[in-house]
Amino acid sequence: MRQPVITLLTDFGLHDTYVGAMKGAILNVNPEAVIVDLTHQVRPQAVEEGAFLLSTVIPVFPRGTIHVAVVDPGVGTERRALVIQTADATFVGPDNGLLSASLPDWARPAPASSGPTRIRLPAEVQAVQISNRRYFRPQVSATFHGRDIFAPVAAHLSLGVPLPEFGEPVDEILAFPAWRACLEEPGLMVGRVLYIDRFGNVITTVRETDLPGRQVWVQIASHHFAGLQRSYQDGPEFVVYIGSSGYLEIGRRNGNAAASLGIQPGERVMVRTAPAS
Amino acid sequence: MRQPVITLLTDFGLHDTYVGAMKGAILNVNPEAVIVDLTHQVRPQAVEEGAFLLSTVIPVFPRGTIHVAVVDPGVGTERRALVIQTADATFVGPDNGLLSASLPDWARPAPASSGPTRIRLPAEVQAVQISNRRYFRPQVSATFHGRDIFAPVAAHLSLGVPLPEFGEPVDEILAFPAWRACLEEPGLMVGRVLYIDRFGNVITTVRETDLPGRQVWVQIASHHFAGLQRSYQDGPEFVVYIGSSGYLEIGRRNGNAAASLGIQPGERVMVRTAPAS
Amino acid sequence: MRQPVITLLTDFGLHDTYVGAMKGAILNVNPEAVIVDLTHQVRPQAVEEGAFLLSTVIPVFPRGTIHVAVVDPGVGTERRALVIQTADATFVGPDNGLLSASLPDWARPAPASSGPTRIRLPAEVQAVQISNRRYFRPQVSATFHGRDIFAPVAAHLSLGVPLPEFGEPVDEILAFPAWRACLEEPGLMVGRVLYIDRFGNVITTVRETDLPGRQVWVQIASHHFAGLQRSYQDGPEFVVYIGSSGYLEIGRRNGNAAASLGIQPGERVMVRTAPAS
Repeated sequence: MRQPVITLLTDFGLHDTYVGAMKGAILNVNPEAVIVDLTHQVRPQAVEEGAFLLSTVIPVFPRGTIHVAVVDPGVGTERRALVIQTADATFVGPDNGLLSASLPDWARPAPASSGPTRIRLPAEVQAVQISNRRYFRPQVSATFHGRDIFAPVAAHLSLGVPLPEFGEPVDEILAFPAWRACLEEPGLMVGRVLYIDRFGNVITTVRETDLPGRQVWVQIASHHFAGLQRSYQDGPEFVVYIGSSGYLEIGRRNGNAAASLGIQPGERVMVRTAPAS
Repeated sequence: MRQPVITLLTDFGLHDTYVGAMKGAILNVNPEAVIVDLTHQVRPQAVEEGAFLLSTVIPVFPRGTIHVAVVDPGVGTERRALVIQTADATFVGPDNGLLSASLPDWARPAPASSGPTRIRLPAEVQAVQISNRRYFRPQVSATFHGRDIFAPVAAHLSLGVPLPEFGEPVDEILAFPAWRACLEEPGLMVGRVLYIDRFGNVITTVRETDLPGRQVWVQIASHHFAGLQRSYQDGPEFVVYIGSSGYLEIGRRNGNAAASLGIQPGERVMVRTAPAS
Repeated sequence: MRQPVITLLTDFGLHDTYVGAMKGAILNVNPEAVIVDLTHQVRPQAVEEGAFLLSTVIPVFPRGTIHVAVVDPGVGTERRALVIQTADATFVGPDNGLLSASLPDWARPAPASSGPTRIRLPAEVQAVQISNRRYFRPQVSATFHGRDIFAPVAAHLSLGVPLPEFGEPVDEILAFPAWRACLEEPGLMVGRVLYIDRFGNVITTVRETDLPGRQVWVQIASHHFAGLQRSYQDGPEFVVYIGSSGYLEIGRRNGNAAASLGIQPGERVMVRTAPAS
């Protein structure tokens, strides 16, 4: 049987050898491991950003892929280390909300709440708290569980070691609110800016599936936009469109929308199904 | 038979998960694919820069390598998507000049022309316009053909699906002018700065094969240099030499030539075979 | 028998295609090569930084791994190219101190000396000066031995070509001083800042194994810290701890210690086993 792919997503950056060390630790356990970088440039300690970025690739990878995610300001404290197994994939990382992406929206806290909160896992999701040192590197540092715990655990998973081997089952984890807008009143949805990508495209929590159609009026900061376009070349300058992960985005034709509009992550966005009066 | 390598060259950067998503889309089709990153830091929407960078690695990779290139400001518009097959390699990407690197100089527009223009493909080059949705991801977004079209098409190519399967043959594509200097008058060649690398080395369109020898006088901006050196340590400070891809370059011993000289891509460079009087 | 992994560590950055070209050159020789990036963001021409970064991953990779390291300001000059084989790994790169990490501390110059100096190799370490052009690319440029010499040599090593094939044995190489603090007087060790990582953690030459225990007083620039903590969350703000590679580090809870403290690589650090009076 073919081995599952192991992906890595961290805030380690690419200047240091932290990512290289994780790969070494994986290959030490499983020399045939297939390792794919998702990104290592999550902003340092930006746990929710990491969770969002991870969520964007889950549907694209083969079923059974092992996603290792490490954005872990609490490393070395009592925060738990988890393996979570769903019908789609297996997830390895700290219990700080980063693995929210493993869960369906309905199992996550409501969009209006803030920060990660403890939720009950759906029945079809299995999870364990990693504790079996047999699957760690011999020496575990207090500051680099990515190399010493998460990487070797992922490598053992890729070799077929079954979930219960790694530790005790858990039925609650920390999760971030679902990335959706709230229906504040009939005809008015309120969301926020989730992420700004390298091109300056502004990605919001407003989902295509929550919109009534393409007839929408969008307000963000002091800017107003009418209607959804299909591609970057459809607008005279700024374009509002459904991005490749199903979220409403604001882009700029051959330019950087976030910089031009002065928008940061967290900014409030309002979507009306009739023009603001 | 061994599978061909798949390379990726984009302007997606490494902060987001766009590159990771392309790899997931490839592995979903061909779990054994061997994927190599060329670069993902082409300046956003700098199509010619991407074409040049791609050209530098083609001779180094094994024959039959599949190069996927995505610098694609026109994504979602009517611009065509192409697969081009030459004796050296297979190329997948948008028809906007990015795949110029697949063609010999003589088939490309003359150096003096500007921007990409439509040229006729040489008889020994096969190309198709990608249209067969059977080889796409089930849902094709309007903004991310890298993930939804180019990646899966490359994966199917790596599995041996023959070229005509992907769409209708084409015999014209957009191509950038050949990267060569022009002989403006006897003893005077005029080129331009193509690219500045991470070290600040200034790479010009002047080719080693177009030079009469090492006795040359180079003028760029208000700076003058005499003669070609062999390595960075040969000059007292600035060195003019033939770089590793066969172009005339200007570097600085243990320093950044472009920053010191105030040179940007596009800057005019003059090469004389006798000193300027 | 399974092939050894080939790792790459360079100062080439990720904007250009230099790293991609090295991978192409490896795959051209050995299409089954398993290639892992350590980092390509060593500061340009910072040879000792590259040596240190390489040292941090050697213990993590499988025995027999082939580490290719290229931080090579002297490329194209008379500096030698080396393959070094130890019980742990094989190393390929220029003879400028970069491969210091292949040697035990006792074989390296004393910590107080500066710059790389020539040392005698221990008897259990084999090394050759690369000279056999049969294992190079057909054309060797003067400026890119990473692609034209080091990459193909590593690929041939991964296919099992024995060390003596590549050139003449050598018994001396350039090496940087061991990364350790000096015992300046009883109770006072003096070291320096080796490296600052992406998080702003300050990594010093003071080794855990040289410390008497956790009761230490640290002075750096005008800052004083008492005692060692275990993790980033243990201090109110700044934390002094043993990092994941066994060196004394200074970090900041959810922040950037180096920037806050105004510390650069090379800064002197003093560690006392009793408080400064």
